Amino acid sequence: MTTPNNTYDVIVIGAGISGLSAAKLLKESGLNPLVLEARDRVGGRTFTVRNREAKYVDLGGAYVGPTQNRILRLAKEYGIDTYKVNEEENLLHHYQGKSHGFKGAFPTMWNPLAIMDFNNLFKKMDEMGLEIPREAPWRAPHAEEWDKMSMETLFKKLCWTRTARRFATLFVNANVTSEPHEVSALWFLWYIKQCGGIMRIFSTTNGGQERKFVGGSGQISESMARELGDQVLLQSPVCGIDQSGVLVAVETLDHRTYMGNYVIVATPPALNLKMHFNPALPPLRNQLINRVPMGSVIKCMVYYKENFWRKMGFCGTMIIEDEESPIGLTLDDTKPDGSVPAIMGFILARKCRRLSPIHYEEKNWCEEQYSGGCYTAYYPPGILTQFGRVLREPVDRLFFAGTETATEWSGYMEGAVQSGERAAREPESPPDVVPRPFEETFAERHMPSVGGFLKLLGFTAFLSVATAAVLMAHKKGLCPRR
Amino acid sequence: MTTPNNTYDVIVIGAGISGLSAAKLLKESGLNPLVLEARDRVGGRTFTVRNREAKYVDLGGAYVGPTQNRILRLAKEYGIDTYKVNEEENLLHHYQGKSHGFKGAFPTMWNPLAIMDFNNLFKKMDEMGLEIPREAPWRAPHAEEWDKMSMETLFKKLCWTRTARRFATLFVNANVTSEPHEVSALWFLWYIKQCGGIMRIFSTTNGGQERKFVGGSGQISESMARELGDQVLLQSPVCGIDQSGVLVAVETLDHRTYMGNYVIVATPPALNLKMHFNPALPPLRNQLINRVPMGSVIKCMVYYKENFWRKMGFCGTMIIEDEESPIGLTLDDTKPDGSVPAIMGFILARKCRRLSPIHYEEKNWCEEQYSGGCYTAYYPPGILTQFGRVLREPVDRLFFAGTETATEWSGYMEGAVQSGERAAREPESPPDVVPRPFEETFAERHMPSVGGFLKLLGFTAFLSVATAAVLMAHKKGLCPRR
Repeated sequence: MTTPNNTYDVIVIGAGISGLSAAKLLKESGLNPLVLEARDRVGGRTFTVRNREAKYVDLGGAYVGPTQNRILRLAKEYGIDTYKVNEEENLLHHYQGKSHGFKGAFPTMWNPLAIMDFNNLFKKMDEMGLEIPREAPWRAPHAEEWDKMSMETLFKKLCWTRTARRFATLFVNANVTSEPHEVSALWFLWYIKQCGGIMRIFSTTNGGQERKFVGGSGQISESMARELGDQVLLQSPVCGIDQSGVLVAVETLDHRTYMGNYVIVATPPALNLKMHFNPALPPLRNQLINRVPMGSVIKCMVYYKENFWRKMGFCGTMIIEDEESPIGLTLDDTKPDGSVPAIMGFILARKCRRLSPIHYEEKNWCEEQYSGGCYTAYYPPGILTQFGRVLREPVDRLFFAGTETATEWSGYMEGAVQSGERAAREPESPPDVVPRPFEETFAERHMPSVGGFLKLLGFTAFLSVATAAVLMAHKKGLCPRR
Repeated sequence: MTTPNNTYDVIVIGAGISGLSAAKLLKESGLNPLVLEARDRVGGRTFTVRNREAKYVDLGGAYVGPTQNRILRLAKEYGIDTYKVNEEENLLHHYQGKSHGFKGAFPTMWNPLAIMDFNNLFKKMDEMGLEIPREAPWRAPHAEEWDKMSMETLFKKLCWTRTARRFATLFVNANVTSEPHEVSALWFLWYIKQCGGIMRIFSTTNGGQERKFVGGSGQISESMARELGDQVLLQSPVCGIDQSGVLVAVETLDHRTYMGNYVIVATPPALNLKMHFNPALPPLRNQLINRVPMGSVIKCMVYYKENFWRKMGFCGTMIIEDEESPIGLTLDDTKPDGSVPAIMGFILARKCRRLSPIHYEEKNWCEEQYSGGCYTAYYPPGILTQFGRVLREPVDRLFFAGTETATEWSGYMEGAVQSGERAAREPESPPDVVPRPFEETFAERHMPSVGGFLKLLGFTAFLSVATAAVLMAHKKGLCPRR
């Protein structure tokens, strides 16, 4: 394809793993993409810092595990190795003022009722997950019912013991950096399911936290960016997207305009709001992007002369159930060669919002204008069933990527790759045969409703009001949108 | 004050009632404000359309009533009269397939249990409201408990009959254009309270829907804009706010930059996201603006040759409880002189999202890029207590207006005036004595938590981890922010 000045086949917004893997695939397919990144670095919610004390440290997304084959494939391609997070020794569970060592993904319970209760809760959650289609959670048989409920309400329904409910709260905090009363049960159950279930998402060994990348996860984005060369522009926050012309015009805050046949928006859904759209986004997407906030987390690292915990028989993992403790979860963050002994701790959800450390060098993701929070977006009750279906739906020549749009390990680096590569494939076909969602006509959608409305008013003097409204609607040509 | 090229005392973003009343007050105080408006019209969520068929029609905010003294004062100043919405004849309640006439704010119930249940529910809601401070709902004695709950959960707790629960759903739909399971109970109870309680908010006569403006509510903004003359710029969507210099630089999408001593952001909180901030907003505000979505409503008008309903003994008000009916609430919209007989209907919340009329000339507020929805923002469970306190908190030289920041009739035109005038007064003092919120130091805030953390880990091998973290925090100078 010819590329006149500032004109590209596809413009990708966001140089996180999702946007970069979209651009990479496009380039490999012989197209000429351009990636626009708001920050002065690539990587998005992954962020590897190098300094003398830490050598390298992942202040953002870091963990990978089995079944995350796309991100592992990408890392392999660039020769980035993984290593296992230390889980050799005992884990620690802090609960009711005492600490207990344990092995495996979940703490040992002493109260037999609590054991039964835990077991039942997690079994039930996985079972409910089975009903939820990965790619369309709103089609689950109980979608509406579960979406109206928060996880807190579901826990109240499913749990008999306070012990189980308390641990379940930490489970939500740690997995989606938000509170059980903030999130839709349908969405959270979907989230767990699309990561492979309770055991897969929460385990270190054989689960989502099994491994880290030697040298840091940031290398993956850096490697892709290197490959793309001057097709990645940093410090280029997009403020405008104009689809009114033959080409889509994308404008950055520094007054540059880039033209593209297509645009892939690879940001968290809520960050679509940073852009002014012409024409405006359709109603459902316009409202969706205000309804999917990002979670709250501060990732902390503390470094030591030696990893004394290992010598004392502890691996460095702590699960901390204590309102007074800001940190809810820790993992060993020592380098694979045993150097730079360190403990990583997450300050999660409500606890994160109480803290606003200033000269803290640890990473508070709540302050990031161009992430909005971490790890991922969550759906408050009622949103997924009402708005979820437009999450991946293209808007004319705009296509949507970002880990939130993934159907496997959404919220993770793995989901970022899946969504980026999916979006890269979407606009390949020429514009006139781009698949568009089937939309019902106004009449198709509303005949029964309007009929009901008519019937409803049949006994009243307003029959003619309704009739007139229907006639008017028909006259006005309430025809299909596209 | 001298005004060099493009430099203003205060730059106001948004020419709705809030922004314009801020600018009006500033101008009257001898200052030189500039109002930047994204749309090609003033008025924001008020929108009066004139045409031959309707003469004039309010497709946005329209109703005013007793206790809304600021908006009434403003209208009076411009000679804009009010007239009473017709409620002479019977109202209609549609329920279980039948319509019943009634008088007063609430439908007559036939089941004595339902009567008791209704009565108790509304009494209880008003009582709960008494506990909630208008200006700081997060300080209510039960703030956390009620904020974790959705209104749906509260209704389940308070109601014995399905009749009451169903009507309560419509009550939420009609008042805040969202669903009971979507909104925090604390927030909704606050909302009702700050409008003067259940009777005041829901009544036509003696309540929030008592009157409309002769000629339309849009005249208020238009009159203020006329007074401000070339100090109001239309089609100037703001994309950047830079507070790094001596003056605040405000940039619009058409590459113009305006300088101001202060900025008043008079948009719905979520629309702060349309702007790129330098420096970025503080963490809590950065996350707040992603957590307060706008409601969903389509306002419909149907016009007739004559208002036959009056002749048949009905005033035009219908309260419609029927899943099949898109419209939940109607009111007579005939002009005060009896001309242009019309019925106004609201399609609310879930029902609005099922509809996406295209060639409909009625107003779908969900599609508005520069409103995000209507009438107002809502707080999902858990947000008000965690983020609410920063809603009005200035960020350096940015001050926040908009009806969402009001403490009386927030969500209404009245709240817009209150918030605009409040924000106009905030930055009056010279910059070095601008009141700033007191912030605790990191140490003050966390000594007990860290103490708890230490105690918590006291029995484990990790005591030294915690100690090191605390020492490190102190060394790093975790001092007050400002």
